[in-house]
Amino acid sequence: MSDLAIDAMDFSALPEETAGKLEWLGSFGKDAKGGVSRLLYSKEWVEAQHALKEWMESFGLSARFDEVGNLFGTLKGKDESETILTGSHVDSVVNGGKYDGAYGVIAGIIAIKYLKETYGEPLRNIEIVSMAEEEGSRFPYAFWGSKNIVGSAKREEVESISDFEGVPFVDAMKNAGFGFRDESKGPREDLKAFVEVHVEQGSVLETEKKSVAVVNSIVGQRRYTIEISGEANHAGTTPMGYRKDAMYAASHMIYEIINMAKEVGDPLVTTVGKVEVTPNIVNVVPGKALFTIDVRHTDKDSIVSFTESMTARMNEISKEHGVETDIDMWMDADPVPMDKNVVELIEKQCEENGLNYKVMHSGAGHDSQIFAPFVPTAMLFVPSLKGISHNPAEFTEPADLAEGVKALIGALYELGYK
Amino acid sequence: MSDLAIDAMDFSALPEETAGKLEWLGSFGKDAKGGVSRLLYSKEWVEAQHALKEWMESFGLSARFDEVGNLFGTLKGKDESETILTGSHVDSVVNGGKYDGAYGVIAGIIAIKYLKETYGEPLRNIEIVSMAEEEGSRFPYAFWGSKNIVGSAKREEVESISDFEGVPFVDAMKNAGFGFRDESKGPREDLKAFVEVHVEQGSVLETEKKSVAVVNSIVGQRRYTIEISGEANHAGTTPMGYRKDAMYAASHMIYEIINMAKEVGDPLVTTVGKVEVTPNIVNVVPGKALFTIDVRHTDKDSIVSFTESMTARMNEISKEHGVETDIDMWMDADPVPMDKNVVELIEKQCEENGLNYKVMHSGAGHDSQIFAPFVPTAMLFVPSLKGISHNPAEFTEPADLAEGVKALIGALYELGYK
Repeated sequence: MSDLAIDAMDFSALPEETAGKLEWLGSFGKDAKGGVSRLLYSKEWVEAQHALKEWMESFGLSARFDEVGNLFGTLKGKDESETILTGSHVDSVVNGGKYDGAYGVIAGIIAIKYLKETYGEPLRNIEIVSMAEEEGSRFPYAFWGSKNIVGSAKREEVESISDFEGVPFVDAMKNAGFGFRDESKGPREDLKAFVEVHVEQGSVLETEKKSVAVVNSIVGQRRYTIEISGEANHAGTTPMGYRKDAMYAASHMIYEIINMAKEVGDPLVTTVGKVEVTPNIVNVVPGKALFTIDVRHTDKDSIVSFTESMTARMNEISKEHGVETDIDMWMDADPVPMDKNVVELIEKQCEENGLNYKVMHSGAGHDSQIFAPFVPTAMLFVPSLKGISHNPAEFTEPADLAEGVKALIGALYELGYK
Repeated sequence: MSDLAIDAMDFSALPEETAGKLEWLGSFGKDAKGGVSRLLYSKEWVEAQHALKEWMESFGLSARFDEVGNLFGTLKGKDESETILTGSHVDSVVNGGKYDGAYGVIAGIIAIKYLKETYGEPLRNIEIVSMAEEEGSRFPYAFWGSKNIVGSAKREEVESISDFEGVPFVDAMKNAGFGFRDESKGPREDLKAFVEVHVEQGSVLETEKKSVAVVNSIVGQRRYTIEISGEANHAGTTPMGYRKDAMYAASHMIYEIINMAKEVGDPLVTTVGKVEVTPNIVNVVPGKALFTIDVRHTDKDSIVSFTESMTARMNEISKEHGVETDIDMWMDADPVPMDKNVVELIEKQCEENGLNYKVMHSGAGHDSQIFAPFVPTAMLFVPSLKGISHNPAEFTEPADLAEGVKALIGALYELGYK
């Protein structure tokens, strides 16, 4: 048996096969606006999961749902007490694309199919999971799928939530044929590794002309809402020196914060995504201005030190402008490093198989961050055209889709057959 | 006859009388939120105008409506071919205060009453007008009252407009008992002067502890909408160097524009009152940002030179940020100087009568700017508490209300009896 799994395989059909299967999965939940809307426990979601189950079974995987609707397909190994898991989430945002989540499910199934066809029974179980939910786009709860797999989801967290049409989470789950996990049972102990493939949702790979990335960490983030209170005044009758212009102060803060972030440099990113002004009338000096800040970095200390400087500077600017500023941090998530050994193993595979890859961090959140504290975890990315994500225009070249599958095959071979 | 009209009068009751009449007029259109909503041609408006007519007639003025609903009350002079006009508008904004507009009507009636009681028949007509409309708050048309008096309102400008409930302007006017002016008739030729008293709607008088202002000009203004197009991107996966952040560019522009305006100094004022960001989501780099700019100054050249620098700087900043910026100027109104002779005459009256006054410009628009091109015009201001305007909390101390009436009495005496 070759040291390199993919040496023995013919990948000529892989680009078309992967793109075709993504097209097929995208037909479940195809919406009127040319995108995919496949929300947790919806009719489209149920149909997609059952269709995936059929496909898994069609080439000999042992497929099953867990209590909440995560779909698993297992290629059984000689030692069934150990499992190498791959996969991603099957749900989409409203009017999303065909790639986010779906690609990780399709890539995993195809990878296992190639491994089975070429090498037969592995040493340990190799398993694909099509996870129930990651996006938080139907109900105000994200990572329902992965959190149930690692045992960190709690029944009481979803018992009183409803979707935007008022349908309770619990009713939607029951109507789809699922229910709660028995929380007295501990998490699965057979999981020895988790490898998720996903589209990048950014444009680093495209810009650097790479086909694949090995992800070594997922950023931590802090999110803030800043509320500035000045004085609403008549735009004509209030001399400049009499004003407490909340938007003037806000623009000063936003401009400086982003300058500061650029000075610190990669991988720090800082975004002011939302701005609201009151009363928001052309001829009234703004009395209030509200904006959000989203700060991300792979290193916790760097997040802490940047946000401390940022907060101090905002307080100075606030004083300078004679306004009141309320700084509310409402999210503080630590960075999640991927497992060093799994990352190195995948990197080595990419290297030896001549894949055009780079090692990078993920600036977006993924199921892998839920797995990582419990299971040795790593991720693979393929490029996203122009970085477009959560949009019907999501696209990855079929050739790159295939490179991602190849990288996954290499990783699963190393983890499952050796 | 004294050179100073107000020497001969007892003003002890004037503060209470003026405040009481404002309270009374504010009862027409008193709304559920504690403010005044007295919109053009509404039931409350009709009742107010008829009640004012009764009051005018009760002390011997000859009162009449014109075709569109401006209410005039005349103290006839020996020479009826010349008229000195005072007054303001009777309409309010939605949920406005008791002072804006109303004070000019009440002050005018009381002033004429005092003059009639003390000096009897004047040399020329002294006339009060309670104008139909100034605010543009029911229909998208402002200055309907004054524009009809000077003959600049056009039938076709209002024939196809409706209020926010879909009621056509023409129907509302007819239901209130009024109709269009005969546009073949020229403007009135008897008007020799117009003096409007109004609340300042700013806090200059309050801050400088003055009771009255003689207004020597009304600012010109330019208004702009700035639309910046960058690229919407994922807040986590897009390194700072890859971004075209429309809000970053907008904050840079807003901060610098306002700094530039402060450097130029009074009487220039510049306001960014409205800001809108797209998609306005915490974790998305803004693809678009829109904001308005309102620039005012008493001198046209200063407006032109400031806005030229401002536009040039915005274009530079736009290039620096790699975004596209569309700069749309949609209002360009020239400053309106008040009549030098009338201003001097009123100033002299204030001086000689020992009023605590200052000469200043108006940063807000008023009916006087419509009159000024046709009739020698000037204005008087009294303080607005904290500059509050278009709000139920509008307030002026009764003592200051009385000082404004005294100044008006002096002005009308000079213009009407000499």
